Amino acid sequence: MSIFTKIITGEIPSYKVAENNDFIAFLDINPNAKGHTLVVPKKEENKLFDLSKEDYKSLMDFSYDVAKAIEKTIPCKRVGMSVIGLEVPHVHVHLIPLNEMADIQFAKKVKLTNDEFVALAGEIAGNFE
Amino acid sequence: MSIFTKIITGEIPSYKVAENNDFIAFLDINPNAKGHTLVVPKKEENKLFDLSKEDYKSLMDFSYDVAKAIEKTIPCKRVGMSVIGLEVPHVHVHLIPLNEMADIQFAKKVKLTNDEFVALAGEIAGNFE
Repeated sequence: MSIFTKIITGEIPSYKVAENNDFIAFLDINPNAKGHTLVVPKKEENKLFDLSKEDYKSLMDFSYDVAKAIEKTIPCKRVGMSVIGLEVPHVHVHLIPLNEMADIQFAKKVKLTNDEFVALAGEIAGNFE
Repeated sequence: MSIFTKIITGEIPSYKVAENNDFIAFLDINPNAKGHTLVVPKKEENKLFDLSKEDYKSLMDFSYDVAKAIEKTIPCKRVGMSVIGLEVPHVHVHLIPLNEMADIQFAKKVKLTNDEFVALAGEIAGNFE
């Protein structure tokens, strides 16, 4: 069971920003930038392009709505998207507010307190349509 | 007119791997890894999440098929996806064969000759369905 499935089942807590029957979005707890969010399918699949075309398109559809909510919440040049997956073998879409290349290179990290994470997740959730 | 629009109109040559009415895919000429491909909508739009939901989903659909062709062509752990756009203001999806994080950090680059690019584009195009 992946760490993301443990988040989905509630075994591990998360700063949730959006959820439907098939997908969940929550804040990355080791963010590249404030607002860095992960979108994860509830059905555990390792690789993005091993998802069926239908499931992949549904994931991308949901990610679009989450990205729009992030854009409304966090001032940034744009929201970037990255799907890598070399570390956790459960598909996850990174949505990251970008101001510079370093924000999407997974080298620079920012720190937030628990209270800041809670407030931020609430703000993004409030902008999710 | 963006450099990608010049590629689409044929003003600038490219190593094309796939094309339909709305999208084109060609090799990145400064690749992170062999097989690094860009997927671009022919309609010039700056930001991914400024595309209509419909256009965005069509772009992602086409990118899925291109990623499958790359996977068939290039031995790698998986194909990663990244959309950044801080440099060229015309939406482009990076599809990159990944073996390590450095392959998607846009810091490490590989060199290919013109002949290698031509052969590679032909191989990926041959695997595109």
